[in-house]
Amino acid sequence: MSKTLLQFDFPFQGPWGAEMPAAMEGLAADIASEPGFLWKIWTENAETGRAGGIYLFASPEEAEAYRVKHAARLEGFGITGITAHAFAVNDALSAITKAPL
Amino acid sequence: MSKTLLQFDFPFQGPWGAEMPAAMEGLAADIASEPGFLWKIWTENAETGRAGGIYLFASPEEAEAYRVKHAARLEGFGITGITAHAFAVNDALSAITKAPL
Repeated sequence: MSKTLLQFDFPFQGPWGAEMPAAMEGLAADIASEPGFLWKIWTENAETGRAGGIYLFASPEEAEAYRVKHAARLEGFGITGITAHAFAVNDALSAITKAPL
Repeated sequence: MSKTLLQFDFPFQGPWGAEMPAAMEGLAADIASEPGFLWKIWTENAETGRAGGIYLFASPEEAEAYRVKHAARLEGFGITGITAHAFAVNDALSAITKAPL
Protein backbone atom coordinates (compact mmCIF):
# COMPACT_ATOMS: atom_id res chain seq x y z
CA MET A 1 0.00 0.00 0.00
CA SER A 2 1.20 3.49 -0.74
CA LYS A 3 -0.29 6.82 0.20
CA THR A 4 -2.56 8.31 -2.43
CA LEU A 5 -3.41 11.96 -2.95
CA LEU A 6 -6.91 12.68 -4.23
CA GLN A 7 -7.68 16.04 -5.78
CA PHE A 8 -11.30 17.16 -6.17
CA ASP A 9 -12.54 20.45 -7.55
CA PHE A 10 -15.81 21.59 -9.07
CA PRO A 11 -18.01 24.62 -9.75
CA PHE A 12 -19.47 25.93 -6.47
CA GLN A 13 -21.64 28.91 -5.57
CA GLY A 14 -21.14 29.11 -1.80
CA PRO A 15 -21.57 29.38 1.12
CA TRP A 16 -17.96 30.56 1.40
CA GLY A 17 -15.45 31.05 4.19
CA ALA A 18 -16.87 31.37 7.68
CA GLU A 19 -20.36 30.51 6.44
CA MET A 20 -19.26 27.21 4.95
CA PRO A 21 -18.58 25.31 8.18
CA ALA A 22 -22.15 25.67 9.50
CA ALA A 23 -23.40 23.91 6.41
CA MET A 24 -20.59 21.37 6.22
CA GLU A 25 -19.44 20.46 9.73
CA GLY A 26 -21.44 17.24 9.85
CA LEU A 27 -20.11 16.23 6.46
CA ALA A 28 -16.55 16.98 7.56
CA ALA A 29 -16.85 14.73 10.60
CA ASP A 30 -18.27 11.97 8.42
CA ILE A 31 -15.48 12.30 5.85
CA ALA A 32 -12.86 12.09 8.63
CA SER A 33 -14.12 8.60 9.49
CA GLU A 34 -13.78 7.13 5.98
CA PRO A 35 -11.61 3.98 5.65
CA GLY A 36 -8.00 4.89 4.99
CA PHE A 37 -8.64 8.62 5.40
CA LEU A 38 -5.59 10.55 6.63
CA TRP A 39 -6.48 14.20 6.07
CA LYS A 40 -8.36 16.69 3.87
CA ILE A 41 -7.63 20.34 3.12
CA TRP A 42 -10.86 22.16 2.15
CA THR A 43 -10.36 24.53 -0.77
CA GLU A 44 -12.51 27.40 -2.05
CA ASN A 45 -12.26 30.28 -4.51
CA ALA A 46 -15.20 32.68 -4.56
CA GLU A 47 -13.69 34.63 -7.49
CA THR A 48 -13.46 31.67 -9.84
CA GLY A 49 -16.54 29.95 -8.34
CA ARG A 50 -14.72 26.71 -7.59
CA ALA A 51 -14.27 24.63 -4.46
CA GLY A 52 -12.97 21.20 -3.59
CA GLY A 53 -10.46 19.41 -1.48
CA ILE A 54 -7.06 17.79 -1.35
CA TYR A 55 -7.10 14.43 0.44
CA LEU A 56 -4.49 11.96 1.55
CA PHE A 57 -5.51 8.30 1.81
CA ALA A 58 -3.51 5.33 3.04
CA SER A 59 -3.93 3.34 -0.19
CA PRO A 60 -5.03 3.70 -3.83
CA GLU A 61 -7.99 1.38 -3.23
CA GLU A 62 -9.35 3.44 -0.34
CA ALA A 63 -8.89 6.65 -2.32
CA GLU A 64 -10.79 5.15 -5.26
CA ALA A 65 -13.66 3.97 -3.04
CA TYR A 66 -13.96 7.47 -1.61
CA ARG A 67 -13.74 9.09 -5.05
CA VAL A 68 -16.73 7.08 -6.27
CA LYS A 69 -18.73 7.80 -3.09
CA HIS A 70 -17.94 11.53 -2.97
CA ALA A 71 -18.56 12.13 -6.67
CA ALA A 72 -22.01 10.56 -6.30
CA ARG A 73 -22.69 12.71 -3.21
CA LEU A 74 -21.68 15.91 -5.04
CA GLU A 75 -23.86 14.96 -7.99
CA GLY A 76 -26.69 14.47 -5.48
CA PHE A 77 -26.13 18.10 -4.42
CA GLY A 78 -26.69 19.06 -8.08
CA ILE A 79 -22.99 19.70 -8.75
CA THR A 80 -21.70 18.96 -12.25
CA GLY A 81 -18.34 19.44 -13.95
CA ILE A 82 -16.44 17.58 -11.21
CA THR A 83 -12.72 17.04 -11.71
CA ALA A 84 -11.15 14.26 -9.62
CA HIS A 85 -7.58 13.02 -10.04
CA ALA A 86 -5.71 10.45 -7.96
CA PHE A 87 -1.92 10.53 -7.69
CA ALA A 88 0.89 8.68 -6.03
CA VAL A 89 3.14 10.86 -3.90
CA ASN A 90 6.82 11.17 -4.74
CA ASP A 91 8.25 10.95 -1.23
CA ALA A 92 11.87 11.80 -2.04
CA LEU A 93 11.05 15.02 -3.88
CA SER A 94 8.30 15.92 -1.40
CA ALA A 95 10.81 15.62 1.45
CA ILE A 96 13.02 18.25 -0.20
CA THR A 97 10.05 20.60 -0.42
CA LYS A 98 8.96 20.20 3.23
CA ALA A 99 5.71 18.32 2.44
CA PRO A 100 3.57 17.46 5.50
CA LEU A 101 3.39 13.70 4.88
CA MET B 1 -2.43 37.67 4.00
CA SER B 2 -4.00 34.25 3.99
CA LYS B 3 -2.51 30.93 3.05
CA THR B 4 -3.14 29.89 -0.54
CA LEU B 5 -3.19 26.39 -1.96
CA LEU B 6 -1.96 26.03 -5.53
CA GLN B 7 -2.84 22.93 -7.51
CA PHE B 8 -0.86 22.08 -10.67
CA ASP B 9 -1.32 19.05 -12.89
CA PHE B 10 -0.44 18.30 -16.49
CA PRO B 11 0.31 15.49 -18.96
CA PHE B 12 3.65 13.89 -18.16
CA GLN B 13 5.58 10.95 -19.60
CA GLY B 14 8.09 10.28 -16.82
CA PRO B 15 10.58 9.64 -15.36
CA TRP B 16 8.41 8.24 -12.55
CA GLY B 17 8.90 7.27 -8.93
CA ALA B 18 12.45 6.63 -7.84
CA GLU B 19 13.80 7.80 -11.19
CA MET B 20 12.16 11.19 -10.89
CA PRO B 21 14.30 12.64 -8.08
CA ALA B 22 17.56 12.32 -10.00
CA ALA B 23 16.12 14.53 -12.71
CA MET B 24 14.30 16.91 -10.39
CA GLU B 25 16.29 17.31 -7.15
CA GLY B 26 17.86 20.58 -8.23
CA LEU B 27 14.49 21.93 -9.25
CA ALA B 28 12.98 20.85 -5.92
CA ALA B 29 15.61 22.73 -3.94
CA ASP B 30 15.04 25.82 -6.07
CA ILE B 31 11.26 25.64 -5.61
CA ALA B 32 11.69 25.37 -1.83
CA SER B 33 13.38 28.78 -1.81
CA GLU B 34 10.56 30.66 -3.60
CA PRO B 35 9.11 33.69 -1.77
CA GLY B 36 6.21 32.67 0.44
CA PHE B 37 6.73 28.97 -0.24
CA LEU B 38 5.59 26.73 2.65
CA TRP B 39 5.52 23.23 1.13
CA LYS B 40 4.91 21.15 -2.00
CA ILE B 41 3.66 17.58 -2.36
CA TRP B 42 4.91 16.07 -5.64
CA THR B 43 2.22 14.05 -7.43
CA GLU B 44 2.47 11.49 -10.24
CA ASN B 45 0.27 8.93 -11.94
CA ALA B 46 1.98 6.72 -14.53
CA GLU B 47 -1.33 5.06 -15.48
CA THR B 48 -3.12 8.28 -16.43
CA GLY B 49 0.10 9.96 -17.60
CA ARG B 50 -0.29 12.98 -15.35
CA ALA B 51 1.92 14.64 -12.76
CA GLY B 52 1.94 17.84 -10.79
CA GLY B 53 2.03 19.23 -7.31
CA ILE B 54 0.04 20.62 -4.44
CA TYR B 55 1.62 23.72 -2.93
CA LEU B 56 0.93 25.89 0.08
CA PHE B 57 1.99 29.54 -0.09
CA ALA B 58 1.81 32.22 2.58
CA SER B 59 -0.26 34.62 0.44
CA PRO B 60 -2.35 34.75 -2.75
CA GLU B 61 0.14 37.16 -4.34
CA GLU B 62 3.11 34.85 -3.79
CA ALA B 63 1.11 31.87 -5.09
CA GLU B 64 0.20 33.82 -8.23
CA ALA B 65 3.80 34.90 -8.87
CA TYR B 66 4.89 31.27 -8.60
CA ARG B 67 2.02 30.07 -10.83
CA VAL B 68 3.15 32.38 -13.63
CA LYS B 69 6.82 31.39 -13.21
CA HIS B 70 6.18 27.63 -13.00
CA ALA B 71 3.72 27.53 -15.90
CA ALA B 72 6.32 29.24 -18.09
CA ARG B 73 8.98 26.77 -16.92
CA LEU B 74 6.75 23.77 -17.70
CA GLU B 75 5.98 25.20 -21.13
CA GLY B 76 9.72 25.54 -21.62
CA PHE B 77 9.97 21.79 -20.97
CA GLY B 78 7.48 21.30 -23.82
CA ILE B 79 4.54 20.54 -21.51
CA THR B 80 1.10 21.64 -22.66
CA GLY B 81 -2.40 21.18 -21.25
CA ILE B 82 -1.43 22.57 -17.83
CA THR B 83 -4.18 22.96 -15.24
CA ALA B 84 -3.44 25.37 -12.39
CA HIS B 85 -5.99 26.43 -9.78
CA ALA B 86 -5.46 28.63 -6.72
CA PHE B 87 -7.69 28.29 -3.67
CA ALA B 88 -8.14 29.77 -0.25
CA VAL B 89 -8.10 27.22 2.56
CA ASN B 90 -11.13 26.81 4.80
CA ASP B 91 -9.36 26.52 8.14
CA ALA B 92 -12.37 25.56 10.28
CA LEU B 93 -13.42 22.64 8.10
CA SER B 94 -9.81 21.61 7.47
CA ALA B 95 -9.24 21.40 11.22
CA ILE B 96 -12.08 18.88 11.52
CA THR B 97 -10.46 16.74 8.84
CA LYS B 98 -6.94 16.76 10.37
CA ALA B 99 -5.35 18.90 7.64
CA PRO B 100 -1.59 19.50 8.05
CA LEU B 101 -1.73 23.30 7.97
